[in-house]
Amino acid sequence: MQTMKAMVFRGVGRIVLEDVPRPVMSEPTDAIVRVTSTAICGSDLHILRGDYGVDEGTIIGHEFLGVIDKVGEHVTDFKWGERVLVHPGFRCGTCESCLKGNPLGCQKGGVFGNPTAFGSLNGGQAEYVRVPLAQKIMHRIPEGMTDEDVMLVTDMLPTGYFAAENGDIKPGDTVAVFGCGPVGLCAQMCAQLFGPSKVFAVDLVEYRLKMAERLGAIPVDSSKVDPVTRIHELTDGLGVNVAIEAIGTPATFYGCLQAARLTSNISIVGIFSEPVELLMPVLCLTNKRITMGLPHKLPEYIPKLLDLIKAGRIDARPIITHILPLSKGEYAYDIFDKKLDGALKVVLKPGA
Amino acid sequence: MQTMKAMVFRGVGRIVLEDVPRPVMSEPTDAIVRVTSTAICGSDLHILRGDYGVDEGTIIGHEFLGVIDKVGEHVTDFKWGERVLVHPGFRCGTCESCLKGNPLGCQKGGVFGNPTAFGSLNGGQAEYVRVPLAQKIMHRIPEGMTDEDVMLVTDMLPTGYFAAENGDIKPGDTVAVFGCGPVGLCAQMCAQLFGPSKVFAVDLVEYRLKMAERLGAIPVDSSKVDPVTRIHELTDGLGVNVAIEAIGTPATFYGCLQAARLTSNISIVGIFSEPVELLMPVLCLTNKRITMGLPHKLPEYIPKLLDLIKAGRIDARPIITHILPLSKGEYAYDIFDKKLDGALKVVLKPGA
Amino acid sequence: MQTMKAMVFRGVGRIVLEDVPRPVMSEPTDAIVRVTSTAICGSDLHILRGDYGVDEGTIIGHEFLGVIDKVGEHVTDFKWGERVLVHPGFRCGTCESCLKGNPLGCQKGGVFGNPTAFGSLNGGQAEYVRVPLAQKIMHRIPEGMTDEDVMLVTDMLPTGYFAAENGDIKPGDTVAVFGCGPVGLCAQMCAQLFGPSKVFAVDLVEYRLKMAERLGAIPVDSSKVDPVTRIHELTDGLGVNVAIEAIGTPATFYGCLQAARLTSNISIVGIFSEPVELLMPVLCLTNKRITMGLPHKLPEYIPKLLDLIKAGRIDARPIITHILPLSKGEYAYDIFDKKLDGALKVVLKPGA
Amino acid sequence: MQTMKAMVFRGVGRIVLEDVPRPVMSEPTDAIVRVTSTAICGSDLHILRGDYGVDEGTIIGHEFLGVIDKVGEHVTDFKWGERVLVHPGFRCGTCESCLKGNPLGCQKGGVFGNPTAFGSLNGGQAEYVRVPLAQKIMHRIPEGMTDEDVMLVTDMLPTGYFAAENGDIKPGDTVAVFGCGPVGLCAQMCAQLFGPSKVFAVDLVEYRLKMAERLGAIPVDSSKVDPVTRIHELTDGLGVNVAIEAIGTPATFYGCLQAARLTSNISIVGIFSEPVELLMPVLCLTNKRITMGLPHKLPEYIPKLLDLIKAGRIDARPIITHILPLSKGEYAYDIFDKKLDGALKVVLKPGA
Repeated sequence: MQTMKAMVFRGVGRIVLEDVPRPVMSEPTDAIVRVTSTAICGSDLHILRGDYGVDEGTIIGHEFLGVIDKVGEHVTDFKWGERVLVHPGFRCGTCESCLKGNPLGCQKGGVFGNPTAFGSLNGGQAEYVRVPLAQKIMHRIPEGMTDEDVMLVTDMLPTGYFAAENGDIKPGDTVAVFGCGPVGLCAQMCAQLFGPSKVFAVDLVEYRLKMAERLGAIPVDSSKVDPVTRIHELTDGLGVNVAIEAIGTPATFYGCLQAARLTSNISIVGIFSEPVELLMPVLCLTNKRITMGLPHKLPEYIPKLLDLIKAGRIDARPIITHILPLSKGEYAYDIFDKKLDGALKVVLKPGA
Repeated sequence: MQTMKAMVFRGVGRIVLEDVPRPVMSEPTDAIVRVTSTAICGSDLHILRGDYGVDEGTIIGHEFLGVIDKVGEHVTDFKWGERVLVHPGFRCGTCESCLKGNPLGCQKGGVFGNPTAFGSLNGGQAEYVRVPLAQKIMHRIPEGMTDEDVMLVTDMLPTGYFAAENGDIKPGDTVAVFGCGPVGLCAQMCAQLFGPSKVFAVDLVEYRLKMAERLGAIPVDSSKVDPVTRIHELTDGLGVNVAIEAIGTPATFYGCLQAARLTSNISIVGIFSEPVELLMPVLCLTNKRITMGLPHKLPEYIPKLLDLIKAGRIDARPIITHILPLSKGEYAYDIFDKKLDGALKVVLKPGA
Repeated sequence: MQTMKAMVFRGVGRIVLEDVPRPVMSEPTDAIVRVTSTAICGSDLHILRGDYGVDEGTIIGHEFLGVIDKVGEHVTDFKWGERVLVHPGFRCGTCESCLKGNPLGCQKGGVFGNPTAFGSLNGGQAEYVRVPLAQKIMHRIPEGMTDEDVMLVTDMLPTGYFAAENGDIKPGDTVAVFGCGPVGLCAQMCAQLFGPSKVFAVDLVEYRLKMAERLGAIPVDSSKVDPVTRIHELTDGLGVNVAIEAIGTPATFYGCLQAARLTSNISIVGIFSEPVELLMPVLCLTNKRITMGLPHKLPEYIPKLLDLIKAGRIDARPIITHILPLSKGEYAYDIFDKKLDGALKVVLKPGA
Repeated sequence: MQTMKAMVFRGVGRIVLEDVPRPVMSEPTDAIVRVTSTAICGSDLHILRGDYGVDEGTIIGHEFLGVIDKVGEHVTDFKWGERVLVHPGFRCGTCESCLKGNPLGCQKGGVFGNPTAFGSLNGGQAEYVRVPLAQKIMHRIPEGMTDEDVMLVTDMLPTGYFAAENGDIKPGDTVAVFGCGPVGLCAQMCAQLFGPSKVFAVDLVEYRLKMAERLGAIPVDSSKVDPVTRIHELTDGLGVNVAIEAIGTPATFYGCLQAARLTSNISIVGIFSEPVELLMPVLCLTNKRITMGLPHKLPEYIPKLLDLIKAGRIDARPIITHILPLSKGEYAYDIFDKKLDGALKVVLKPGA
């Protein structure tokens, strides 16, 4: 039995580098991908804290890309040696729930490195990964694009695009993005695609605000000013047309509600650990539209984002602040979790 | 000074019939309308309970229609004797807030029979009413249509239409409307315009469910079954595509969230007195879109609704259960408030 | 070698009943379907006239449903004996054209009973048919639904739905459908799902107008009145908001342009044999939107239409005027082509 | 009687500088504007050629801005001395046609310097202009913005925005704009607001292509290459998602149809003098959406465009190639008509 290195969940607070068996083909619809780059996601920290009930021994990681090592006989559109990026998860596409436009309800799907209806599914922070339903969830990396060019297309950019699209931003609108972590920065970049007049970026960590500014936003430092007051000042007292929540806390949710004008859209893509309270006696007299959720149109988003990157309209590479060998995976989790050393996106290289 | 009869707010719990001065012209943009029909709205009960801080002495009522008695010189599109229905409120249309698509923020507008930035504005439960900015907020009643044909176009039907439109109902969708009062019934009728496969109507009052069924919905009696369970049973276990909240309580808000499938729209038009709690750790993983607010596109909705009534596609007359002379106004409030005698919409006739 | 009966193209003007070899499995993605009902489409008449260059010997027919007789090993979601309806054609879904949202450009796809990039593909007016990429283009028929209930879901209703959807009909709009053949009648039924105030149906064949009226439209007999004049009279002189062309002639195209008001949508689903001339010096000053094409969202439309039929919101059975054994196929073509005997949709039963 | 200088239509081929009477107030809804800048529009050349039947003696010009000199008593939102830009035309807003969303059908409206139902209306290529329904069609120029900053907001930018909006451009789409005159360049700039991956600009005049490139487009010189072939080469052989016609000739209309992929949008804003022929037997099998017309949502577009200019997201000043005193008006027409001296937008200054 061949082994490989992988980041494995070993109980609350412990994601550790281990030698584990290499994955093998299980279904004719599978592929095995040799991972060349994989990134740590904010939701991996939820796993680390035990929020999601991942089984011990599960390999973590749903943001990864690499080279096809094996394909099952039903995977007719791909072949050995092709570079692919893989969706963070999959749906069967054929159950009642999928057919009726309700993919989140699919009981046969799942997210890499997360629990599913049929047990936890090994992820991609490893040298190799088994990809179920590979034909449906792999996407060829266009020639000439590096791993870093497309790394954030696996998850961050589709989520940011979803956030912006849900906001229904129209040219000339004002937008506020609460949170300048990788998702918030991607939301901000994608918001710019819809022609806003101004994009405000709210955070309290200085290096993150600097990055937001570098990417074209007007930074609002919530450690120094009340962001709601500041945003109203900068929008003729009206508030923004669209507010995007990209952190997942009640405070930033409320910030969005207050920074947004009376007729406005609030788009939530943060992952929450606590409930929020809506002051409906006031809110119900305002024309607010609140959306939330996970990007469910990856087959549409991914080619679009690749085209935009190729054309130079989006460049998410600055968000990758660290590229480390997989062997430094535990250190990588540490700096990512504690926001050390200016960390935004931290990428691991299994091959290195 | 000429006097007239009117329903006047006299402190919490007291809306009484009084003799008051007839309104006079104040601006060249005003009109005076002789009211021929006026209805009591659920929000008038909020006023009765003191929720909105209406000044004592204010004439109540924002649902009314009648005959033009006088027009100011700037009101060039209307003339004496024309039958008109009047919007429940108005915006200036020229302040920064109005120009930037934020009419709810207008400080120069207001709702009849409600407080405004410049004092409480007398309403239409009276023999006569002064209509400010009359050119903008009056709509001619098409020839051949009775007061009863169009009574609900003043407020209930636009609100119901707004609820249905916000739900973004597509042909074939399933819809649940929580609440079978006048707004809920209008929302249900308007939902039918968007081609749903099924519309469920949830309430616990038998005569209201009967009316919902008569108007084409599948009644769900929440006094006998858990509506969420029942709706899931009737939608292949998925829940509805669109849920409409038309009461304004936390319980029905939660009912909507649970009756709606994972990817779905929740449209709120109930007026709330209490906050609600959103379980974001769960909700943020579902693709929910929640909208709320007040219908702000009346100039678009009203001609549309009149056309639909004329063509027989909508008939809201069954919702008018009582037509009483204005002199019985206090009794009318009583049966409306206590849901006595099968009351849904209660109309007062000042002329009678 | 087993044989079967089938309708075979034998040169211009000749579609004849023949004994031909039964189809056999060719790819692991294939299925063989035993046809229980198949219908003649207007575009089959184009084939009959030689318009499409179908190879001699091709079995005609793209509207069919039946029972699964065999499935290839990659067709894992279906099994022997299930009743299915089959899309009229297929796309590979994985070529550049398909991935970029351009399915009509797919070189690996095709329509049953029509030429493709890789030769003419046998169709379903036969006892058996080979279905390529079966997993993608078969749809299970819900329990309790007869062949007749769902027959028009194979092609006519999706086309009609596409016509109505392209028209972007809003509640209260007025709609004119030019043509009361099967496509026009389906467009008219689907238009009703979007809440129009009035739907006009234009034709010059009396029995077709009768059917249109029975299905809820206002008939306009173009053999007796100028339909454009009549439609303007019935729409306050404005013309309709949406005009649907469902025949495919210059005259009806022009009729649509003239019957539609200055700001309006024209939706074309007729199949044309001649060019049309647009009077751009006039048209370019009007806000017209003209759409055309083929329904490309069948996986979305078909479940929607089945739900609507199940719920009783659509019933296309009256459009099936003839059900004949396959053995009478030549007679069936004759009455369909010549509009004899009140023919609208003519269905053939291979088993009978 | 006071006189002023103005550009006056004196028969086919003659628009001349004359001394004419200064306009006076006629209705209480009028304003008189002292023009500070006015531009020549491509459609003024149609007038020059006699295409529109303008009455002799009419003052030309519908692109202008200036300072309020007088306001009628119904024009309560503006006062003497305010800087305003004026819509190119107006609608009554209260006739059946206007109320039913059909403003182009309004018989009481008109375009400055053009024929109307009630005679030709004097335009703004003059020292002063009478503005009917002034309250509805004047827009305050924000403080700190120069005439040149906002000159193209009177007509070119709203038209360009309308072209882009009609194209329904999504982020990542490819766009081709046929024509690099002022409208085409504005369409191209507005297209960029919707996040396309590439915008192609087609023309055969070198200085116009240079300007297109300077404003961010990929120039395609149709004097040297076949633009359709070139655009297919640059879009993986698929063609563009959206093609915009901004000239008004059959050749460019056909170019758009051919440069656009099978499923695509064609947006026409050129003004045509000739009909075009649509090859429907081919086109009807493609999913094309063709829109045309005039921008009808100026009250929405103008504040949006001003915000975008203020925020630096749009800068149309480079399109203004010439600023001349009104006294050189005849020379200005000459260079504009003959595309001399690199002329794009030519602005006249009545005060100079």
